[in-house]
Amino acid sequence: MSQLYYGVAYYDEYMPEERLENDISMMLDAGINVVRIAESTWSTLEPQEGEYNFWHIDRVLDAMHRSGIHVIIGTPTYAIPAWLASKHPEVMVTTASGQQKYGRRQIMDIVSPVFLRYAENIIRVLLEHVQHHPAIIGYQLDNETKHYDNVGPQMRQQFIRSLQQRYPDIRQMNQDFGLDYWSNRIDNWQDFPPPESTINASLGSAFAAFQRQKVTDYLAWQSGIVAEYKQPEQFITHNFDFEWRGYSYGIQPRVDHFAAAEALTIAGVDIYHPSQQQLTGREIAFGGAVTRGLKQGANYLVLETQAQGFAQWTPFPGQLRLQAFSHIASGAKMVAYWHWHSIHNSFETYWKGLLSHDFSANPTYLEAKTIGADFARLSDTLDSLRQENEVAILISNQAMEAFNWFKPGDAQTNVYNDIFRRFYDALYDANIGVDIINDVDQRSARYRVIVVPALYAADDALLNRINRYIEAGGQALIGFKSGFSDQHVKVRSERQPGVLNQSCRVSYSQFVLPQQVGLYSCSDLQLDPDEPVDLWMELLTADDDARVQVLARYQHPAWGEYAAITEAEYGAGKALYLGFLAGKPLITRLVERLSGKTAAQQFPLITRQVVNKAGNRLMFCFNYSATAARLSLPQAAEEVLQGGSVNAGEEVCLAPWGVHIYQFTPGD
Amino acid sequence: MSQLYYGVAYYDEYMPEERLENDISMMLDAGINVVRIAESTWSTLEPQEGEYNFWHIDRVLDAMHRSGIHVIIGTPTYAIPAWLASKHPEVMVTTASGQQKYGRRQIMDIVSPVFLRYAENIIRVLLEHVQHHPAIIGYQLDNETKHYDNVGPQMRQQFIRSLQQRYPDIRQMNQDFGLDYWSNRIDNWQDFPPPESTINASLGSAFAAFQRQKVTDYLAWQSGIVAEYKQPEQFITHNFDFEWRGYSYGIQPRVDHFAAAEALTIAGVDIYHPSQQQLTGREIAFGGAVTRGLKQGANYLVLETQAQGFAQWTPFPGQLRLQAFSHIASGAKMVAYWHWHSIHNSFETYWKGLLSHDFSANPTYLEAKTIGADFARLSDTLDSLRQENEVAILISNQAMEAFNWFKPGDAQTNVYNDIFRRFYDALYDANIGVDIINDVDQRSARYRVIVVPALYAADDALLNRINRYIEAGGQALIGFKSGFSDQHVKVRSERQPGVLNQSCRVSYSQFVLPQQVGLYSCSDLQLDPDEPVDLWMELLTADDDARVQVLARYQHPAWGEYAAITEAEYGAGKALYLGFLAGKPLITRLVERLSGKTAAQQFPLITRQVVNKAGNRLMFCFNYSATAARLSLPQAAEEVLQGGSVNAGEEVCLAPWGVHIYQFTPGD
Amino acid sequence: MSQLYYGVAYYDEYMPEERLENDISMMLDAGINVVRIAESTWSTLEPQEGEYNFWHIDRVLDAMHRSGIHVIIGTPTYAIPAWLASKHPEVMVTTASGQQKYGRRQIMDIVSPVFLRYAENIIRVLLEHVQHHPAIIGYQLDNETKHYDNVGPQMRQQFIRSLQQRYPDIRQMNQDFGLDYWSNRIDNWQDFPPPESTINASLGSAFAAFQRQKVTDYLAWQSGIVAEYKQPEQFITHNFDFEWRGYSYGIQPRVDHFAAAEALTIAGVDIYHPSQQQLTGREIAFGGAVTRGLKQGANYLVLETQAQGFAQWTPFPGQLRLQAFSHIASGAKMVAYWHWHSIHNSFETYWKGLLSHDFSANPTYLEAKTIGADFARLSDTLDSLRQENEVAILISNQAMEAFNWFKPGDAQTNVYNDIFRRFYDALYDANIGVDIINDVDQRSARYRVIVVPALYAADDALLNRINRYIEAGGQALIGFKSGFSDQHVKVRSERQPGVLNQSCRVSYSQFVLPQQVGLYSCSDLQLDPDEPVDLWMELLTADDDARVQVLARYQHPAWGEYAAITEAEYGAGKALYLGFLAGKPLITRLVERLSGKTAAQQFPLITRQVVNKAGNRLMFCFNYSATAARLSLPQAAEEVLQGGSVNAGEEVCLAPWGVHIYQFTPGD
Repeated sequence: MSQLYYGVAYYDEYMPEERLENDISMMLDAGINVVRIAESTWSTLEPQEGEYNFWHIDRVLDAMHRSGIHVIIGTPTYAIPAWLASKHPEVMVTTASGQQKYGRRQIMDIVSPVFLRYAENIIRVLLEHVQHHPAIIGYQLDNETKHYDNVGPQMRQQFIRSLQQRYPDIRQMNQDFGLDYWSNRIDNWQDFPPPESTINASLGSAFAAFQRQKVTDYLAWQSGIVAEYKQPEQFITHNFDFEWRGYSYGIQPRVDHFAAAEALTIAGVDIYHPSQQQLTGREIAFGGAVTRGLKQGANYLVLETQAQGFAQWTPFPGQLRLQAFSHIASGAKMVAYWHWHSIHNSFETYWKGLLSHDFSANPTYLEAKTIGADFARLSDTLDSLRQENEVAILISNQAMEAFNWFKPGDAQTNVYNDIFRRFYDALYDANIGVDIINDVDQRSARYRVIVVPALYAADDALLNRINRYIEAGGQALIGFKSGFSDQHVKVRSERQPGVLNQSCRVSYSQFVLPQQVGLYSCSDLQLDPDEPVDLWMELLTADDDARVQVLARYQHPAWGEYAAITEAEYGAGKALYLGFLAGKPLITRLVERLSGKTAAQQFPLITRQVVNKAGNRLMFCFNYSATAARLSLPQAAEEVLQGGSVNAGEEVCLAPWGVHIYQFTPGD
Repeated sequence: MSQLYYGVAYYDEYMPEERLENDISMMLDAGINVVRIAESTWSTLEPQEGEYNFWHIDRVLDAMHRSGIHVIIGTPTYAIPAWLASKHPEVMVTTASGQQKYGRRQIMDIVSPVFLRYAENIIRVLLEHVQHHPAIIGYQLDNETKHYDNVGPQMRQQFIRSLQQRYPDIRQMNQDFGLDYWSNRIDNWQDFPPPESTINASLGSAFAAFQRQKVTDYLAWQSGIVAEYKQPEQFITHNFDFEWRGYSYGIQPRVDHFAAAEALTIAGVDIYHPSQQQLTGREIAFGGAVTRGLKQGANYLVLETQAQGFAQWTPFPGQLRLQAFSHIASGAKMVAYWHWHSIHNSFETYWKGLLSHDFSANPTYLEAKTIGADFARLSDTLDSLRQENEVAILISNQAMEAFNWFKPGDAQTNVYNDIFRRFYDALYDANIGVDIINDVDQRSARYRVIVVPALYAADDALLNRINRYIEAGGQALIGFKSGFSDQHVKVRSERQPGVLNQSCRVSYSQFVLPQQVGLYSCSDLQLDPDEPVDLWMELLTADDDARVQVLARYQHPAWGEYAAITEAEYGAGKALYLGFLAGKPLITRLVERLSGKTAAQQFPLITRQVVNKAGNRLMFCFNYSATAARLSLPQAAEEVLQGGSVNAGEEVCLAPWGVHIYQFTPGD
Repeated sequence: MSQLYYGVAYYDEYMPEERLENDISMMLDAGINVVRIAESTWSTLEPQEGEYNFWHIDRVLDAMHRSGIHVIIGTPTYAIPAWLASKHPEVMVTTASGQQKYGRRQIMDIVSPVFLRYAENIIRVLLEHVQHHPAIIGYQLDNETKHYDNVGPQMRQQFIRSLQQRYPDIRQMNQDFGLDYWSNRIDNWQDFPPPESTINASLGSAFAAFQRQKVTDYLAWQSGIVAEYKQPEQFITHNFDFEWRGYSYGIQPRVDHFAAAEALTIAGVDIYHPSQQQLTGREIAFGGAVTRGLKQGANYLVLETQAQGFAQWTPFPGQLRLQAFSHIASGAKMVAYWHWHSIHNSFETYWKGLLSHDFSANPTYLEAKTIGADFARLSDTLDSLRQENEVAILISNQAMEAFNWFKPGDAQTNVYNDIFRRFYDALYDANIGVDIINDVDQRSARYRVIVVPALYAADDALLNRINRYIEAGGQALIGFKSGFSDQHVKVRSERQPGVLNQSCRVSYSQFVLPQQVGLYSCSDLQLDPDEPVDLWMELLTADDDARVQVLARYQHPAWGEYAAITEAEYGAGKALYLGFLAGKPLITRLVERLSGKTAAQQFPLITRQVVNKAGNRLMFCFNYSATAARLSLPQAAEEVLQGGSVNAGEEVCLAPWGVHIYQFTPGD
């Protein structure tokens, strides 16, 4: 695995005509060196129960191997065959709107023993058949696995059983979850009501956490099966996805990526993003940061991203290159397209692949050929890049779930992700390298700054670890609503922000929705005249303590006395508390205030600094705009894509949607 | 009951920690003299069938009594325990979208014999236990009872039985409801189709009326049970609510407040309203007027209103006082907050009480202390205030239901309430004191003006009583669509507006939606240049009769010949007919034209004139704005809140969101 | 049938009081010479199973006959009686949202043997009873029959059976529909999944076509029954309707009008349209063109259109006349209102008839009297008018269904109809007479121009016939997305637009959504500066062939090299290809470029040229605006409505919403 991979998903099964040799020839022209196969083809592999057909698998494996193209085998379980649904209707998932009907993928009950039995069988049969094939470099478990909003009887009973184990005394559960409210007490396990219709956020969040746990269990179970067959050098990965808003928008609420990734030997992901004038690289960067974080900063596989995709995604000239190298700069060691050829029937006809429906060499394919050539040429330089980021953002599925139970005002979206993206995008746009973490522990000391947005539900232990991080010299930007409730989504009855008051030295007992409100500075913090106060607004009071100062207050006839941003010394560190959702420039300024560093460029000119396996420092420069951009290099460097040397301070020009990669002269 | 009450709902059951003595101490500081308990705590009272637990009830009753705080006991029936739903799934209500799942409150079938049996038992057990406790001043039946869109088999069968009794000859029902249309005839009771899927507005409205009747019956049944236990001096009330649009917006369609109130000894209500910059007092006033009307003008209890409430409701300094005295000015003798402490789990965590989650003395609590002190000091002056309004608005559940079957154009809201609020708000803003009535009868003669908005469905008798009221010297402003259909929602085949043509002397057979249309005056009525014509527009023709004059016509190329507003003499009275939804200023002018009176002030400066039990005249002055306001007093008076005397004609100044109460010098 | 008919739907059953003689007298005054009865009155005819009541039918037939008014009998089957639903719940249709509850009309399962048995019985009983009555001129089968989204077990099983017959080898179905995708293969008929939840557009479109086929079968079955009873001179018709957007908007997706019309002796239709300021005549014209096309240009019946209709439709003075003569100009030989009297109960109370609820002579009725008089006077001149249009638009239910599976961007509407209306309206507004066709064959040679919008799914044979039409000298305007997929909705893997590339000499493999894009001309085609590029945008490349020229390209930084409109010579004809949705003026210019003709007037002044049965040429002139309009006559003519002669070149004036009909002097 010590090379850059350039890949596509390949479905011989979906072809309207014989294409294999033509396709491989076009792949080789484009530098494609890996294909992913099999992941949604159960019905072709096992057209009837117990009848197997390896025709497509075998011919693709053999042909790829002959051509030196590697293969990733996906277990075919994420789309079940019609005969299984027909024979065993109970394998269809039941959601709050009832049992689902056959048709879509990802509508099976992943805790159904019947489903698991059939799934195990097809995985074993397939792996038995292919396990010794030399083309195979690794396996993908299932695809974009989630719990599919499963509230079926199995899920429910297992959930109740898990609570029974956690709560030998049922009264403690009533206490933790506050079930007395609206007469929701449960004093007998057999009276447990349907968790999906509860109005109790504590119970509802516990159920959601359990549903995520079942995804973790399911992937671990598949991983265990695959491990029985795979060769030692073959990897096991999974294709994680993100909260979807027509593209990869934010943290996935239906899986705990960090927990589920433990079953993998390398993390994998799919990242889809706006394109054309809306191409910003933000999703590539945050998606990469999350996936890199799953295995302590290790490189990862982009198992799917768009080639042509939807009509609104058809890339402008240059964008496909820009995207590919943006993935690499984030730490990807594979960029693979979904998918090779556009599909002629069914649902994703307009989610186009690298080839259009006519299989001819279209402009996107022609641009891919330049990427494949660059990947091959620069594999040694660009494979296994290492990030050395000084800033991390703490995310939490638990906080997301709990916060989204209580969306401010009229919000309808996944508000946690709206907030996450506001913070993430601010730092991305300011060229501040960011890692994503899901815990604060001893390893966190390596970060100069940790940003904590909307950590709405957390146990005392995590909040105390944040305090300890600060005390030991760390710097934290703590966002509104953090610390508000405990791990049971019970609001703390101490003064808010609960345990974090210790480091932040600020408190509040009231909050409002911002309406016609501004900010004014009462410190050295510079504020723009129209600085937005969005979404939520806590009426903060700094502790009566010289170690905390108010940086800004609200400009408002009724709330003018309250603090909006405070800064506290705590031990050897510092804690900024932000009582509202700030605009991106202010977030940037606050993080820069903590880190003491300011980048020379900002969006749309994006720079990423990394270290390669030879120990050389590289700087990627991306122009995310339709107009040419200029920048001066801080030191002498060699441009590795087009070639040529640049002196320190020399100004270089990036074409619209252009990319440069500079390797700094060692010792310079 | 001869004092002002200042109260809170109190849930010892929901407390995350021991608080009782602390809470009582803070209550006493704030002048809280009544708490409401028990109303949603069935599962705590009866954690398993037949097992009872009075621990919370007893300790709260005893502690309150020791501190001199009164207690209202709510029957706990509006949120059922999980074990009841688990044991008897049939108690869950069935609506048009199916049988509801356990979780929310208010989802039981209030006509289910099983539910009624269990509900009766817990009421009797509770009352048996507490009935002699001296802290108790009264009982609240259930809470915000409605029919919960019940279309279950019991409701349906009882409805059909009621029709069988009403229609010994089924053919008459077919005739009254017009069931021949689209082959909907029913010639055999056993073929009666599901009423919830009917497309027949007559049948649908009859079913809705029956559903409301079942709420009336249910409350009367609970009242009967409570009456067996209560002491003679204890009251029976209910907490009515209103059509909800994120706050109390209009007349409640799912209860007939007037009919249901017959089971009560005193009316009660909850009123929630916009706050901060959107605080207007309108909901406090109309909600009070409705509730006052339920018992012929008697004082009522505000059993719930917001202290802090939602984030967007957190009151500006001064607003909590403004709200409290506005309730009193409307005739309330109790102002009670929902609720004492903010809840730490479940659904209403962000519906904050007087205390925040940290139980400390926040700014809202501190303001409440001033109210409690004023209530105590002024109880004699402000208790049992009497209104002497000269204008009444006639409302009708029947008309609302029928009209909303036929919403004009693209309207999606409860249009009847939109219209009601337009009329009500116009008069409120103009400081015209208004009562709400649900019938016109001999007692109505005391009103100088009756306003009749959208009385879409009414029997001949009511329309004739309106005519008689006018004939006898009353003045009426009759709104569009009044009189259009009969009590079966059968459109009248006489000329429109049916029976009201007699008094209004106007008719029409066509109507349109207003589009690019204005008004022009053809009388002494002053019209603004941009007077709006909203929602609906009847093409009126005045009778060929000298006793009717056209006040205004439509400005429109096609409809310019038609009258828009007419004025008719009828007997000793006068009838204005308004063929469209007018803007608030024009509505005000029309009512002032009838009453002959114009108030000196208008919104945001609101004045309310009342008489107290000593017979003194009081004037409340409310500044519903963020800027100071001035007014001159018509006569010498004493300001009772801050103290001090004012001479006739002297100008006084109200602070932003300020309130003054003037007691006029008798004889002055 | 050699006369003009002026009619109303008449429901003696719905009357709140005895009206028959009064009504007939008012009808005679208004020139009403035909009434349609019985079509929704099953429950009145058969109040209980096997009990029949002909009272209303008999008295209406007799009374009408005495007065010389003709009667159309509708079979009463489109609204079933409550007893049938009660006795046989399985007759209620099952849709994707479950089995429907009784209430609305048109919710029966038209493939249920039980329903068909009862329907056949009531049709036979009724026809047996009335068949010899001399008042009857014809029969209407059912009403607005559609498949009602039927996915019930009968529909599903019959569909699967039809596929079994079509596909003796199930593997061919998998291949045609591309079922391998997402593991949707079906290798055993008994595993066939619910067609309504499929995500496969090929399977979904095949099911929709089958549902439409069942409507065709149902009407043919009713026609067969009626034919057993009807007299030779009596007609059989059906009342087709259109895609509904609050009015008749476009092609009906739930019936194949052309196939279903084969069971009729004369086509019938209902057309409802915006009115007042929004009255344009467009729906009258396109609805007429579709209905005229069902029987190769023959005259048709407008069985329903609005008299007063909804409040927003109440006609301005003059509009009812304008509408009536617009129908006649399109080829109608009957204009009938739905309905005579406004209904006093139920659902359509505000869908008013010619009379309001008070049955008096309102302004709309008074205007109808002038129409009735003109129809009677001019029957000989205006009956059986013939169109001689040179332009046709090709429509396709198959293409609509398939295209709507893949709506561009965020589109939610029936996009096919949006496109159809853009093309149709452009030609209507430019006074280009248009026919609607659903195939191209030898008879198509009579058209100078055929317009082909969005022919997304079509077999090779149809595309080849289009090529042959052009080759033989025809001219075609081919719209974007035409030819893209085959009859199985499998995208072609040849270069796009597939077979049409042969005549259009243009191809593309990429397409985008238009965003900030314009057009620039690279030919003699004139373009406005702000010419819109809507909905979709194909990146076209003209073949390297002198016989094709690029007329316009896109103005866009990335796509400027691609063609937007091309023009090709092919054989003796010409093909314009339009790669995007153009604005109406550009569509008009392209059609005029092909036809070589430009009309002297344009909307709102609409002219229609026709030939009457005497062979005289007539020109209808319609002023669809609120301001008077002028035009010069091309030749001497006689105005037949008001009377009087006009010389060639003389200018005449049309009143607002006015209509003139000129008969040209033969030989002039």
